[in-house]
Amino acid sequence: MARWQPGARERLQAAALERFAEQGFDGTTVAEIAAAAGLTERTFFRHFADKREVLFFGQDRFEHMFLEGIDNAAEGPPMSIVAAALESATAFFPDERRAWSRARQAVIDADPSLQERELLKLSSLAVAMTRALRLRGIEDTAAALTAETGVAVFRVAFGAWIAEGEERSLAELQRAVLAELRSLVSTA
Amino acid sequence: MARWQPGARERLQAAALERFAEQGFDGTTVAEIAAAAGLTERTFFRHFADKREVLFFGQDRFEHMFLEGIDNAAEGPPMSIVAAALESATAFFPDERRAWSRARQAVIDADPSLQERELLKLSSLAVAMTRALRLRGIEDTAAALTAETGVAVFRVAFGAWIAEGEERSLAELQRAVLAELRSLVSTA
Repeated sequence: MARWQPGARERLQAAALERFAEQGFDGTTVAEIAAAAGLTERTFFRHFADKREVLFFGQDRFEHMFLEGIDNAAEGPPMSIVAAALESATAFFPDERRAWSRARQAVIDADPSLQERELLKLSSLAVAMTRALRLRGIEDTAAALTAETGVAVFRVAFGAWIAEGEERSLAELQRAVLAELRSLVSTA
Repeated sequence: MARWQPGARERLQAAALERFAEQGFDGTTVAEIAAAAGLTERTFFRHFADKREVLFFGQDRFEHMFLEGIDNAAEGPPMSIVAAALESATAFFPDERRAWSRARQAVIDADPSLQERELLKLSSLAVAMTRALRLRGIEDTAAALTAETGVAVFRVAFGAWIAEGEERSLAELQRAVLAELRSLVSTA
């Protein structure tokens, strides 16, 4: 009779990331991850459908935070609504998560199929944001363009956030990247 | 003794696209494509490594045209160098190509693995453009941000270009999307 293990998910994620970093994603089995976390395979599969899910767990919530930011933003020009979405999403990336995010990215960068999955995640995010912006009455081209641009700002700021030695928060970095974008685009 | 068939590549591409549209990408074999084009499978494989390549043939040249635009652009702010890259790439999409591009996109939109490949193509383009901009002395964040933004402008303009009934050229649409981006970003 297996019982729910408190903190099991986090222990499995930490153990998996360590194994992936050492042995590569393909070279790691679920059995090894479970053993390293001091848990059974059954417990692993109670939390994750497969080992890839360890890296993509919480994707729905990730997307949801951007969309919630769009829905709750004050009336204003499309780009300020996207800025509100970016602010809202920073709650998903507190500074305690930075080391995990950095290690996760290194694993993803080392594996083309994980890279594709990550690209798909960000592309789905742009599509969902475009839809949410349209629902706020923003015209199609403006919705697609601000959504794509917002995702580009997130990617660049996120890359800076997980860089070795960076200490600014994701919120600060996103604001800086948005300001830089404004200056770059105005001088074209 | 097979001889080089003039126009064979184009005939195979047209036949493949028609089959993919009717039967789906997975439901079409190389044998069917070759037969529909009045050619042999051997001729098919002289032109394409597999049936997916029919849709992605010319990807190197596609990327190269953006990069050439960056290399040849006059000195100026990063965003004007990216605008030059977008102009340069329009030579890859003359109006005669619009119907093919529209049909190709419909096939890709219907198949998740083709969508992933297309995303990967655009992501590689952003990475290559970032590198080319850095080589022109542009600082890392500005290079990544303008490259990603440039790809977003291309995607949105390309989507408009292949929309049913659209008659403006890709160059015109890209200029309009860039102008809209400038106005959107300045009012954030």
